[in-house]
Amino acid sequence: MRVTRQSQTHYEKTMNDRVYIFDTTLRDGEQVPGCQLNTEEKVQIAKAQEALGVDVIEAGFPISSPGDFKSVVAISKAVSEPVICGLTRAVEKDIDVAAEALRHARRKRIHTGIGASDCHIRYKFNSTREEVLERGVAAVKYAKKYAEDVEFYAEDAGRADLEYLAKMVEAVIRAGATVINIPDTTGYNLPWVFGQKIKYLMDNVPNIHKAIVSVHCHNDLGLATANAVEGLRNGARQAEVTINGIGERAGNTSLEEVVMILESHAGLNLKTGVDPARLAPTSKLVERLMRMPVQPNKAIVGANAFSHSSGIHQDGFLKHKDNYEIISPETVGVATSKIVLTARSGRHALKHRLENLGYIYSKEELNTLYAKFLDMADRLKQVEDEHLKELTHAFQSA
Amino acid sequence: MRVTRQSQTHYEKTMNDRVYIFDTTLRDGEQVPGCQLNTEEKVQIAKAQEALGVDVIEAGFPISSPGDFKSVVAISKAVSEPVICGLTRAVEKDIDVAAEALRHARRKRIHTGIGASDCHIRYKFNSTREEVLERGVAAVKYAKKYAEDVEFYAEDAGRADLEYLAKMVEAVIRAGATVINIPDTTGYNLPWVFGQKIKYLMDNVPNIHKAIVSVHCHNDLGLATANAVEGLRNGARQAEVTINGIGERAGNTSLEEVVMILESHAGLNLKTGVDPARLAPTSKLVERLMRMPVQPNKAIVGANAFSHSSGIHQDGFLKHKDNYEIISPETVGVATSKIVLTARSGRHALKHRLENLGYIYSKEELNTLYAKFLDMADRLKQVEDEHLKELTHAFQSA
Repeated sequence: MRVTRQSQTHYEKTMNDRVYIFDTTLRDGEQVPGCQLNTEEKVQIAKAQEALGVDVIEAGFPISSPGDFKSVVAISKAVSEPVICGLTRAVEKDIDVAAEALRHARRKRIHTGIGASDCHIRYKFNSTREEVLERGVAAVKYAKKYAEDVEFYAEDAGRADLEYLAKMVEAVIRAGATVINIPDTTGYNLPWVFGQKIKYLMDNVPNIHKAIVSVHCHNDLGLATANAVEGLRNGARQAEVTINGIGERAGNTSLEEVVMILESHAGLNLKTGVDPARLAPTSKLVERLMRMPVQPNKAIVGANAFSHSSGIHQDGFLKHKDNYEIISPETVGVATSKIVLTARSGRHALKHRLENLGYIYSKEELNTLYAKFLDMADRLKQVEDEHLKELTHAFQSA
Repeated sequence: MRVTRQSQTHYEKTMNDRVYIFDTTLRDGEQVPGCQLNTEEKVQIAKAQEALGVDVIEAGFPISSPGDFKSVVAISKAVSEPVICGLTRAVEKDIDVAAEALRHARRKRIHTGIGASDCHIRYKFNSTREEVLERGVAAVKYAKKYAEDVEFYAEDAGRADLEYLAKMVEAVIRAGATVINIPDTTGYNLPWVFGQKIKYLMDNVPNIHKAIVSVHCHNDLGLATANAVEGLRNGARQAEVTINGIGERAGNTSLEEVVMILESHAGLNLKTGVDPARLAPTSKLVERLMRMPVQPNKAIVGANAFSHSSGIHQDGFLKHKDNYEIISPETVGVATSKIVLTARSGRHALKHRLENLGYIYSKEELNTLYAKFLDMADRLKQVEDEHLKELTHAFQSA
C-alpha cells in the first residue's frame, strides 16, 4: 500500500469535522420482506427525517416500480431542507427516470454506480474491469446532465481490488462525481481493514479532495456500525445509514448508533446535523409504519437500552448514575418519567406522549387531535396509551 | 504507553489460536426486564449451550436469589462438558455461596471481582484505589480455597486508569487468578481504543502469560462485537458473550457474531469450539424461552439475515450466490428448503423442524414425541408448524 506524503497533505488540508448523514431508510431500509410502505407513509417518514436533521434522504429507486417513482416525486415535493436522492444503475434509462422523479426537489442528487469487485464484474455483469469502469464514468457524465450533485457507488467495494478501486474512483471524480460511496455490500469487512481501505483511497486517489467519500456498510457480521465509524475516522465524511439499522438481510449501519458515537466521543472531533432528541420518536415511527420490530436490546433505541435491572447495577446506578450510564435517556428523546394525561394536560404533553408511541404530527394535525383528546379526557378522566392509539385511528380515518 | 520488547516476547510465546467462548446468556443475559427463567428452562438452555460447544457456562449469581442458587446447582448436575461458572462480588459470603452452588460441577470456576474505574471506586465503593485492589486480591485468594479456576473481573475496566488496571491485574494473577476479565461495562469504548487497552495489558503486565485475558463488552453504542474482536486480535483469548446478544441494557457481545467473524475470517487465525450449525436452533430456543424477540435484521440469526429482497440483489444472487452472500444459511443451521412432514417422515426430519422452531429435545424425548407425531400425521396427512407446537405442548404437560 503506497502512501504518498503529498496526497496525505491534500487530505489533511480538506479535513473537516462535519459528517453528512445520508439516510437510506426509505431505499435500502425499505428493501426488506414485509415492510413495503405506501407513498403517504413514506412522506411521513421523510418529514420525520427532515425534522431529525439528516442531510440527504435517499427516497427510492425510481425505475424499480411505479410506486417507488411516485414516492420519490411526493417526497421531493413534501420536504425542502435535505437533499433528495434517487438510486439508479449505470443505465441511461434509470438515470432519465430518476431525474424525472426528482424534478420537484429543491436540492437533488442522482446516485448511480456499478460493481467494483471482480466477483460482481465477472458474475453479475459478465464483463471486464475496463468495460465496467467505462460504464461507471459514462453513467456519471450522463447523470451530470440532470444534476450537479452526482453520487457514485462502487458496489461491493469492500471486496474489490484496491488499486482498481482507486482508479475507478479517480475516473468518476474526473467525470464529475461529487460523492463517492464505498459500500461493504456483503458486510464482510473487519473494522480495521475497512478503515485502511478508506485511508488507502484518501492517500492514493489524487483528486479525492474534490469529492466527499461516503461509507455504506452492511451488518451481516454485526460490524456495520464499527466499520462506518472506522471509515469516518479515516477520512470519509458521509455515512449511509438507516433508522433502527433496518435493511437488506441483517441490515445497514444504524443511524442512531453512528450519531450517538460521534456525540458521546468528542475526541473524534466529528459532528452531524442530527438532533439526538428526535432519535427515539423517529425510531418508533419507523418501527410502527414499517412493522419492523426493534429488539429490546437494540443499542440507543431498544426498549431496554436504558433499563438497569440487576441488583448490582441498580444499586450502583442509584448511588451515581455515571456508574452504568454513558448516555442519559432524555438526550435521545426517551421518556423516563410518566406524565399522567388528563383534561388538564396541554398540547405539549400530548405531543410528547404521542411521539413516544411513534406518532409524529404537524401543528395543525395536533390541534385537531387535541380537541378530540380533551373530549376523551373529560369522559375517561385519565388517558392511557391504548386510548391515544384509538384517538389516532379516529383521526386517520376522519 | 510503554511497550517493552521483553513482555511482547512473553505475549508472542503464549500466542495461541484457540478462543474460549464464555457464554453468559444465563447470567448477564438473563439480567433483563421480563425474561426471568425457571430452573427447568435454564437447564434446557445449558444443555443447548453444551451441545453448541461453548467452553464456559456462566450459570448465575448464586447469592443474588434462592432461584439463582438452585439453578446453578441444577446446571452443575445436568451438564458435564463445559466449565460451570458462578458470579460473586469480592465478598466472602458471596464466594462461600457460589462454591456451595457449584459443588456438583465436574469443572467449576468462581468469577469474582470489583470495580476498577475511579468512578466505581469513588461512587460505588466509596473507597480508594489501594483498598479496592486489596479487596480484589483477598477475594481471589479466598476463592482459590474452593476452586483452582478463578476468574477475576475488573469492573468498568473500559473506563479505568490503564496503569492502575495493569497493577490490579498483576496483583490478582499473583494471587492465583487464572482468567482476567476486562469488561467494557458501560459499552463506551471505541474498537481501536479497546484493542489498544488489551494490548497495553499484554505488553505491560509481567505475569500476564500466566492467565487468559477475557473481553466482556456491552452494546450501548452498537460496538460490543467489534470491541470483543479487537480485544481478541490484541491478545485476549476468551470472549464473554450471550446468545442473540441479550443482556443488561443494550445487551452484550453476540455469541453468534463473534463465532461467525472468526469462522469467516480465516486470516485472523482464531478458532472456537462452537459448532456453527447449532447457532440458529440455539438462538431460537433462547428467543422462545426468554421471550426476548430477535429483530428480523439481527446479524446471523435474524429472520431476514439471509433474505435477498431487492430486484438487483435477487438477480445478482441468482447469477452467483457469492455476489451477495458471505455465509450460507446452512452453515449456521438455518433451514432453507421446506421439508413437508408426513407419516413417512423420519425422526431426523422431525428433530430438524422442531429445532428450527426453537425446540431442542434429548433422544429419549424425541422418541416419545415421534410416536405422538406419527399419530398426528396419520390423522392430518401433512403436519405444519402450528401442529408441531401443539405436539410439544401436549408433551410438556404430559
